[in-house]
Amino acid sequence: MSHHGPTDPLGQIYAEWTVEFAAHPEMSLPLMRWVFEDWQRATAEPEGVTYRSTEIGGVPGILVHPLDADPTQVLLVLHGGGFALGSSASHRKMAGHLAKACGADAFVADFRLAPEHPFPAQLDDASSVFAALVASGIAPRDITPVGDSAGASIAIATTLRQIDRGEDHAAQVITISPWVDMENSGETIETNDATDFLIAREGLQGNIDRYLSGGASATDPLANPLYADFSGFPRLYITASDAESLYADAVRLDERARSAGVDVTFDVAHGHQHVFPLQAGILPAADDAIDTIAAWYRAGRTSTTSASA
Amino acid sequence: MSHHGPTDPLGQIYAEWTVEFAAHPEMSLPLMRWVFEDWQRATAEPEGVTYRSTEIGGVPGILVHPLDADPTQVLLVLHGGGFALGSSASHRKMAGHLAKACGADAFVADFRLAPEHPFPAQLDDASSVFAALVASGIAPRDITPVGDSAGASIAIATTLRQIDRGEDHAAQVITISPWVDMENSGETIETNDATDFLIAREGLQGNIDRYLSGGASATDPLANPLYADFSGFPRLYITASDAESLYADAVRLDERARSAGVDVTFDVAHGHQHVFPLQAGILPAADDAIDTIAAWYRAGRTSTTSASA
Repeated sequence: MSHHGPTDPLGQIYAEWTVEFAAHPEMSLPLMRWVFEDWQRATAEPEGVTYRSTEIGGVPGILVHPLDADPTQVLLVLHGGGFALGSSASHRKMAGHLAKACGADAFVADFRLAPEHPFPAQLDDASSVFAALVASGIAPRDITPVGDSAGASIAIATTLRQIDRGEDHAAQVITISPWVDMENSGETIETNDATDFLIAREGLQGNIDRYLSGGASATDPLANPLYADFSGFPRLYITASDAESLYADAVRLDERARSAGVDVTFDVAHGHQHVFPLQAGILPAADDAIDTIAAWYRAGRTSTTSASA
Repeated sequence: MSHHGPTDPLGQIYAEWTVEFAAHPEMSLPLMRWVFEDWQRATAEPEGVTYRSTEIGGVPGILVHPLDADPTQVLLVLHGGGFALGSSASHRKMAGHLAKACGADAFVADFRLAPEHPFPAQLDDASSVFAALVASGIAPRDITPVGDSAGASIAIATTLRQIDRGEDHAAQVITISPWVDMENSGETIETNDATDFLIAREGLQGNIDRYLSGGASATDPLANPLYADFSGFPRLYITASDAESLYADAVRLDERARSAGVDVTFDVAHGHQHVFPLQAGILPAADDAIDTIAAWYRAGRTSTTSASA
């Protein structure tokens, strides 16, 4: 194994994308979106899971049902892709693995994408799904936002805004390789450049520009949770790899939330790519990451259920 | 509705692809493959279907199992994409709809693609899957090749070669928008140019060149079934739309097989795009097409089962 080339399937996929991005510096947004759909290739089909194309709260997406899951527990999956890329299709299989491990259903939301729909359309859509689930009879504590990369920002900011507004909100939030820094200032963007085969500063800035194209500030606490007040935020799970360009985002998110008294669990993986749990069913480290998330999820449900009983 | 723009979801998808193909005339093969993966967008998730990433006979793919299906009946799905594009992922959902309607499992084969693997690698892989299914205890008459576009050519040629070699082969073959003419001579390529939003002669020739890059002739009966002897070929289903650029391929395939005494059913759809049944769960005409295929499938199973009993 080379120290300089990808050593896992997702790293190879990212390296293949990077060749094309370099060869087509003016690649159109539709083409870039089709490239990112290739994320689905990193994940094996989870067995024993069924799917339904539907909408919840006016937001289209895929409802994921493991055959033995409790459909009154729902993971609200907010996919990565810089607020502008990715879809329910790119994340369907990872959601299936996670839902199976948690014994829950999952709804992978096709929230509106930037720049056609800048911040806060993504938060509005996540809130709409949450409210519609509650209106359908699901208890707020049984709805768990799960976000990877930019989806982590949506999961966190949606919850922050619900708390601020006094609305129903989740009792726990799960983030995977979170991307939260809209100032594009994380030091690992440079220091992990050689080990992260996808993320570079220019690509991040492109997505920041798309997300904030409605005029929001890069330090708006709902656009950039590193500026948010986490007082009263529910228990929070963070996993990220120390080889990622965005590792500094996970570290700072952990610090920010913990300093406000949030019950944070930060699981640091070693040597893996951005959103490495996408390799569920293919890479044992991804399956382990999902099992660890699920154990945390189940432990939290037990405590929140007994606390409210 | 305009007479000149796409009037169904797949037509809109093809029109979006065509914009990018025109803007990137030197588009690389990896990018072109990611664009064609977007085929998946045309299809809604079929409900009550589970999936497994596996391999059969050394060929990777997705095993599709509708919850109430008989797993001893298998559709061997050979996806379209000009022998060079498409995948089990692009066709998983259509295979799920078809398998549900037929009451069978389906295996969507990721046969090797051209030009890395020219003709007859695709036939070799389809044969390997077929033989492995038989070795696992599935009766040959319970394995039904289903091919769309280039996959139809693979389904037909694989069966022709099995017959010629005296090997186990299917009792019925299903084709959807078949592409069989490697001489690129169909008159509807021009006469349906205005109503087909995907197919043009140059794109076809690119795929022909990839498929035949190993040196096979465009009139080799296994590369071009319009030159094949269909004597002894099993009952054959063809569906295609009269608005397709490749409609002439379906017409000539029907004539060629029928003139050799094959029991052919040719279901002509009107005004739809290439491989329009991909819109299953979204477009009623696609669901109707799949129901009609399934009725033919079930009728044939009854007759072949009683004939061999």
